[in-house]
Amino acid sequence: MYRKKLKVLDCTIRDGGLINNYHFSDDFVKAVYRAICDSGVDIIEIGKKLCVGAEYTREKYGKWNFCDEDDIKRVVESHECANPPVLAVMYDVGRIDISALPPADQSVIGMVRTACYVPDIDKGLDLVKRTKDLGYETTINIMASSAAIEKDLIEALQQVNETPEVDYLYLVDSFGAFYSEQVTSYLKLYKENAPSKELGFHAHNNQQLGFSNTQQAIIDGVNLLDATINGIGRGAGNCNLELLLNFLKNPKFDVRPVYKVIQEHFVPLRHEMEWGFNDIYGISGYLNQHPREAMKHRANSKVRDNCYDFFLEATSEVA
Amino acid sequence: MYRKKLKVLDCTIRDGGLINNYHFSDDFVKAVYRAICDSGVDIIEIGKKLCVGAEYTREKYGKWNFCDEDDIKRVVESHECANPPVLAVMYDVGRIDISALPPADQSVIGMVRTACYVPDIDKGLDLVKRTKDLGYETTINIMASSAAIEKDLIEALQQVNETPEVDYLYLVDSFGAFYSEQVTSYLKLYKENAPSKELGFHAHNNQQLGFSNTQQAIIDGVNLLDATINGIGRGAGNCNLELLLNFLKNPKFDVRPVYKVIQEHFVPLRHEMEWGFNDIYGISGYLNQHPREAMKHRANSKVRDNCYDFFLEATSEVA
Repeated sequence: MYRKKLKVLDCTIRDGGLINNYHFSDDFVKAVYRAICDSGVDIIEIGKKLCVGAEYTREKYGKWNFCDEDDIKRVVESHECANPPVLAVMYDVGRIDISALPPADQSVIGMVRTACYVPDIDKGLDLVKRTKDLGYETTINIMASSAAIEKDLIEALQQVNETPEVDYLYLVDSFGAFYSEQVTSYLKLYKENAPSKELGFHAHNNQQLGFSNTQQAIIDGVNLLDATINGIGRGAGNCNLELLLNFLKNPKFDVRPVYKVIQEHFVPLRHEMEWGFNDIYGISGYLNQHPREAMKHRANSKVRDNCYDFFLEATSEVA
Repeated sequence: MYRKKLKVLDCTIRDGGLINNYHFSDDFVKAVYRAICDSGVDIIEIGKKLCVGAEYTREKYGKWNFCDEDDIKRVVESHECANPPVLAVMYDVGRIDISALPPADQSVIGMVRTACYVPDIDKGLDLVKRTKDLGYETTINIMASSAAIEKDLIEALQQVNETPEVDYLYLVDSFGAFYSEQVTSYLKLYKENAPSKELGFHAHNNQQLGFSNTQQAIIDGVNLLDATINGIGRGAGNCNLELLLNFLKNPKFDVRPVYKVIQEHFVPLRHEMEWGFNDIYGISGYLNQHPREAMKHRANSKVRDNCYDFFLEATSEVA
């Protein structure tokens, strides 16, 4: 599936950091950056850009929750790259300080992705406008669309459509609940209500559909695709970058540096961190639930593999 | 996706047995049978029905490579079931003795699936005719269609079309090489050249597409779907039965017994046997290769996670 406009965004560090509270070693982050550079991937999201607070310290929450310019620069300067990827960070509505963001021409960052739920769309779009005014490429990532009331979602999409500062509008399968037919029907809704926007797609792999749903998004016209190396990411993880690059067959990509960094850095990391499909996350996705209960279940070593018990609990809740 | 004609065939023991040479304990096989009965799955394939030989002994190759009537009966009689599944076995061309097969009305077996490669289609169809003459439901499972020369495949399909004894014609993604678009284009070929046949689909999960490709097959009109509990099967395994039952939403199915047997029997089994996606199998599927090299690589504890090395080796072969 070759289409010139298609771009791939690697969010390995940002989504993977949700597992270990962004405590990746500098060597690991540099190795990921090197692999993304050498593989020709278009954009790398290196973390969140949140606001340090008394409780919210760098020691506790890890440097890639804050993405200081100097920290990013050290990574970028560690590897020479003829055609470097755009550097992106994520903004979470309510936890950022936009007054601390320099203009884009004074920053190593090129793209700011603003994540918000449907009820916070006004706050989200306000941030998008202000980041665009500072010169950044922008996205709005509407989370948990599968759990939104459709009327509210449609209104949010229409607001996005009327906001020229939004470069990309993201469909996000936060709960890993989509089958391909849901990808298609949500994208239809997005295109009908925000026809002026280029679209992005962010999958989760709860039901082993992260990669296939990303393919479906491509078929349905999405031009910005999220993926992570080895599928790393919270819970069941994301669409595997290496599978996606193989699928895309675009000569600008080279998958080998991705396999290399998996072999050298992700295989050892699996001894410290867990990600990927299992039946607990499968049930959570099937039921269109926030993954927090599934993650809690997996964190309890006594019950972590008890998918039958989890299914009974999850389906016995009284409405 | 509810369609009355859709049937699900569990091949947990038959495909899982390829990992451990069919050395499942009787308790395990009985637990699988119980789960399939109680979940309402239509058909259970309990093993292969090969011919015992001097080299080919039950001790070495495991009883479910041979599926003696008495062994199957002990399983069936271990659990009362109001609406029991049809019992299927697999025939491999060249390794069976049809003269030893009793008529269907004297057997606990109800379906014989004959597996063959394209060049053996005449032998395969001969077996199908003879099993049908004995009263069995029949399928022909053409293996490795992704590696067949299209002209030869088309001729094979036309022969199948002219063989009334074939109840189901199977598209088999032996190498886990298909994306959804290949599922669609192969099924188009199958329907064009064998329009008289009901179709079946058997996936492999090399690229995390076992489940999604099975969904695509349903969309494209396939009415007999293979799956295995927890996705067990050679290499990357198969389409997960529990995910498929959740997707189908057919009131005749109950997924809970499947989760129960996973919790009680498959979780412990993972300490002894390996199955499921990893990047070695992903590369093998992407390259449309027989999984034997990938399995050899995984069996070598020194290199089993070296996906970069495997990619380089696999792509450097001189044609």
